[in-house]
Amino acid sequence: MQSDAGVTTAPHFADRLTAASRRKAPVCVGLDPVYARLPPALGADACESGAKARMAAITAFCEGVIDAVAPHVACIKIQSACFERYQAIGMQAVGPLVQRARKVGLVVILDAKRGDIGISSQHYAEASLAPSPFEEAGNGGGADALTVNPYLGDDALEPFIRTASEHGRGLFALVRTSNPGSDALQSLALADGRAVCDAVADMVRELGEGAGLVGTTGYSLLGAVVGATKAADMRRLRALMPRQIFLVPGFGAQGGTARDVADCFGDDGGGALITASRSVLYAFEAEGGTDWKAAVEAGAASMATEVTAALNP
Amino acid sequence: MQSDAGVTTAPHFADRLTAASRRKAPVCVGLDPVYARLPPALGADACESGAKARMAAITAFCEGVIDAVAPHVACIKIQSACFERYQAIGMQAVGPLVQRARKVGLVVILDAKRGDIGISSQHYAEASLAPSPFEEAGNGGGADALTVNPYLGDDALEPFIRTASEHGRGLFALVRTSNPGSDALQSLALADGRAVCDAVADMVRELGEGAGLVGTTGYSLLGAVVGATKAADMRRLRALMPRQIFLVPGFGAQGGTARDVADCFGDDGGGALITASRSVLYAFEAEGGTDWKAAVEAGAASMATEVTAALNP
Repeated sequence: MQSDAGVTTAPHFADRLTAASRRKAPVCVGLDPVYARLPPALGADACESGAKARMAAITAFCEGVIDAVAPHVACIKIQSACFERYQAIGMQAVGPLVQRARKVGLVVILDAKRGDIGISSQHYAEASLAPSPFEEAGNGGGADALTVNPYLGDDALEPFIRTASEHGRGLFALVRTSNPGSDALQSLALADGRAVCDAVADMVRELGEGAGLVGTTGYSLLGAVVGATKAADMRRLRALMPRQIFLVPGFGAQGGTARDVADCFGDDGGGALITASRSVLYAFEAEGGTDWKAAVEAGAASMATEVTAALNP
Repeated sequence: MQSDAGVTTAPHFADRLTAASRRKAPVCVGLDPVYARLPPALGADACESGAKARMAAITAFCEGVIDAVAPHVACIKIQSACFERYQAIGMQAVGPLVQRARKVGLVVILDAKRGDIGISSQHYAEASLAPSPFEEAGNGGGADALTVNPYLGDDALEPFIRTASEHGRGLFALVRTSNPGSDALQSLALADGRAVCDAVADMVRELGEGAGLVGTTGYSLLGAVVGATKAADMRRLRALMPRQIFLVPGFGAQGGTARDVADCFGDDGGGALITASRSVLYAFEAEGGTDWKAAVEAGAASMATEVTAALNP
């Protein structure tokens, strides 16, 4: 056990995530805050505000969402782009949100889709997945997991895996993404009969079975992103990656249903994390925004119920 | 013409880069600064310094490199990971370096290998490739170009392309990377006889031929990263992407030679940018570090001469 910033970190990411999923629900709320869609109570005025004022409003919104969803879901996923949009001012806000979410018992994924080689991969991994050696820089102790892009190959992923393993953290490699255009590359047929995404799945499975990478629950610290909108591929990819926890975007606003996602889970009823962003974050819009936190909490609770029901029909 | 932060931006990225390459040399120096390898004159002491002190030393080094190489090469490429390593403190340093480099006539590529979908791609593009609407956030007017990862498909690249086009900026999509493990995915044979990287090349070519994306020199604002270490693929990829400017890493420390890279250029002797990092940045190490700026300048000049000679044998 290691302690950083008051947060106790058990040694294996997959075991921690599995325990949180069973205690609450295997659901992840995506924090993709966009200033123009914040609740009116937070005073959003897209024409007037500078970066600091916007980030203050976004931070207040994210804090409210974190507190509202924490009792109902295992995990939150912070979309790095929404913060990088505001340069260093935005980056400064990420560490405290990571820390706040971990303190209220949420597993935190930083969705930054990083990918590079050698020491650059190492830099990205250390900046995201380890307590920063630079206290003044403040990364909130690092996220529990990071999304990574596999296009550069296995050696490009290794520094991420090594760093995650050293710090009891995890990774989710993009295998099959939820956007319509993902077919352009990920669905192409290889000469050996596999699809390109199957080859990535094989690479992820092999990398994830390395020494010490599989926890006591049988899942690896190296998970996979597989979109809920790609139902036709889900069972095949599940069979190809028995030890990967699937991070499954595309639920809710992107059209995936709880029935689609039941196939994402392993035979033990674990091994997947269903994620939604807009359908929870902006649940208050349908209600006129009078009590946005209550609406967000109800959205998260409803999603947790729906996913749990799909798993136990 | 648009003016931001005192820098005049001609309308088409590929034309600007081609002009700079012809005026000086089609060479790019990669700014991948690592604190432990800074010249002793900058007082590097890896055991002692906090993030602010380290970034101050790194910034001083980068400023010296920018000034030293500006007379000899067309371009610098800033490795984002080396700055993100220091969280917001590192990110704050990038904008002023971008601005300084553009002021001394260098084309600036931000090597951040971003890739996401929809509004997240849009956020990354705006943060990197456009003068920030948030003056306090300070992105130095935005870089001239950004590296992007194609794994998520064509629709994921479109927000990057749209933003680059609107602001006279460019992109380099990863097609064939220089690391040994890149074969794991990029070299796989497709059922139709192409390699995976050829399919990416076809996607990049098609996207790059969109309305208004090709400049008067015949090159698109959407370029391609093709590693110098993949000589066997270079001619084929060159033929597949006649309108892409190739950003060619792997020269120098990674083993590519000027002879290998002559194949990267188009029939007009343009369309490629040969890049090296360590062999230029750390040229002073061989000389004992007494005058590191002179050594860096000599390293850049020597590389420019070598590449120009390879092009005009």
